[in-house]
Amino acid sequence: MTAPLTPDELQQRLDRGGHVAWLGLKVVSADPEKEELTVRAPYRDELRRGGDAKQWHGGPIASVIDTVGDFALIMMLGRGLPTINFRVDYLRPAINTDLIVTARVRRNGRSVGVSDVDVFDEKGTLLAIGRSSYSTLPA
Amino acid sequence: MTAPLTPDELQQRLDRGGHVAWLGLKVVSADPEKEELTVRAPYRDELRRGGDAKQWHGGPIASVIDTVGDFALIMMLGRGLPTINFRVDYLRPAINTDLIVTARVRRNGRSVGVSDVDVFDEKGTLLAIGRSSYSTLPA
Amino acid sequence: MTAPLTPDELQQRLDRGGHVAWLGLKVVSADPEKEELTVRAPYRDELRRGGDAKQWHGGPIASVIDTVGDFALIMMLGRGLPTINFRVDYLRPAINTDLIVTARVRRNGRSVGVSDVDVFDEKGTLLAIGRSSYSTLPA
Amino acid sequence: MTAPLTPDELQQRLDRGGHVAWLGLKVVSADPEKEELTVRAPYRDELRRGGDAKQWHGGPIASVIDTVGDFALIMMLGRGLPTINFRVDYLRPAINTDLIVTARVRRNGRSVGVSDVDVFDEKGTLLAIGRSSYSTLPA
Repeated sequence: MTAPLTPDELQQRLDRGGHVAWLGLKVVSADPEKEELTVRAPYRDELRRGGDAKQWHGGPIASVIDTVGDFALIMMLGRGLPTINFRVDYLRPAINTDLIVTARVRRNGRSVGVSDVDVFDEKGTLLAIGRSSYSTLPA
Repeated sequence: MTAPLTPDELQQRLDRGGHVAWLGLKVVSADPEKEELTVRAPYRDELRRGGDAKQWHGGPIASVIDTVGDFALIMMLGRGLPTINFRVDYLRPAINTDLIVTARVRRNGRSVGVSDVDVFDEKGTLLAIGRSSYSTLPA
Repeated sequence: MTAPLTPDELQQRLDRGGHVAWLGLKVVSADPEKEELTVRAPYRDELRRGGDAKQWHGGPIASVIDTVGDFALIMMLGRGLPTINFRVDYLRPAINTDLIVTARVRRNGRSVGVSDVDVFDEKGTLLAIGRSSYSTLPA
Repeated sequence: MTAPLTPDELQQRLDRGGHVAWLGLKVVSADPEKEELTVRAPYRDELRRGGDAKQWHGGPIASVIDTVGDFALIMMLGRGLPTINFRVDYLRPAINTDLIVTARVRRNGRSVGVSDVDVFDEKGTLLAIGRSSYSTLPA
C-alpha cells in the first residue's frame, strides 16, 4: 500500500511537461477516501472547434477525460498508468467556459483500473462523460 | 444525394481553423466508393506524452480519431456532423512518427453514422483503433 | 410532456413477452425525479458461465444492462427506444446471486438519451457497469 | 507458443455447457493465420425482441459478440480469457435470420487482447459491430 498522492504532488505531476502540462490543468480537490479527483481545464484557443464561438472541440475534451481519469488512479497508486481504452459521450456543447472535470475510481484492481469522468461547465451543467480503463500492472 | 467531397474540398475544411487546423492534418487519399478516408497527422511537440521520447500522448490520438472518423462521413454528406460518442483502444505506443489514420464508414444512416478508424505509424504498424458515432440528422 | 410510467406500468412492459420477459426482471424502485430505476434480475441456469459454480456469463449481464438502461428512459418517455450502442465493463465475477441493477438517465435529449447502469450483487458489491445510448427520436 | 485450436476443438469448447452451449453456436470457419473466426448463431425464441416478428433483441446479440470475440483469442491462445469490457453498435434490425458472426483479433498482447466482431444476417447485410477487450494474463 502506497500513501495516496497529495494535491501538491498531483499538481507537480500535471505540470511535469508534455501535452498534460500544455493543457494547463489545475487540481481543484483531491479526495483519496472517495477516490475522487476534480481538476480545472482552462479554455485555450488552440482547442476551439472553429468558427467565432469559443466552443471546445470534442477531441481536447476527450484528451482531458483520459488524463483526469488516469490521475484519479495515479492519486491512489502513486505511479503512471497506461490507458487501455476509453469511451466519451458528448451531451452538450462546451461554449465560453473552462471545464470542471471530476474523475471517480470505479475499480482499482490488480491488472485493470476503471474511472468515470464527468465534465461540467463553470455553472455546473454536465457537458460530457467519459469512462476509461487503465493497466494497473506494475511496470 | 450530395456529391461526395473531393480531396481538395476536404483539405480546405481541415484547414478552416480551430483545433482541427492546428492539428495540421493532411489528406492522403479519399475514396467515396469505399467510404474510406486516409489522413496524415504530423507529430508536434505540444502533443507529446512527456519525458524525452517523442511519444504521442493518448489524448491527441483520440482527438485525431474523432476528427478523421467525422471527416469520412463529411466526405459522404458534405456537411459537419456532431460526435455522439466514441471509443478508442490503445494497442502500441506511438513514438517518433507521424500518424497515418484511415477511417471507414460502417453505417451512414438517417440519424446516426458510425466510423471505424485505424491509426498506424509511418511503417504501417497498427497503434490504436477508434469507433465513433455521429449524428447525421439535418441541422 | 408525458407523465412518467409508474412501477406497475414498467413491470407490465417488462413482462410483455420476448427476451425481456424471459429474463424475469422485477422492478425494485422507480424514481422519475432522480430519473433512476432499480430492477432485480434473477439468476437462471441458462445464463451461467459454465462449470460448477452458479456464475453469470458476461453476455446476459450485458443484456440486462442494455434493457435496464433502456427502461430508465422508457420510464421518462413512456415509449420504447432503440439502442444506438453501449459499453459494459466487468469489474468482479457474479457468483451465486441475483443482480440488483440501477440505471440512471444522464441525458434525455431530443435525439439521443444516455443511461449509466450499475450492477450489484445481493450484498451491494459492484460487479459491472454499463453506459448506453438510445435514440429518443419519435418513431 | 501454443498451437492454435482446430475448428473441432473450438466447437467442443462452444458445446461445453452453460450459456454458450445454450446459444447453440456453430463454427463456420477458423483461420489462425488471419486470426479470424466465423460462427453461426441460430435464432431462438427466447432471444426475440417481443411482438410478432422474429427479431433478435439487442442483448443476446451483445452476448454473441462477447463470446465470438473471446473465441477468436481462445483459438490463438488455447485457453479461456475474461472479458475486460466491450462496446456494441447496432446498425440494422436482425429479423428472421440466424446471425453470421466474424471475429478478428486486432491485438494479442501480453496483458490485453482486442477483437473486432462483425454481425451479418444470412444474406450478408451488416447488422451490428462489436469491439471487445480481454485479459490475456496467465490465470
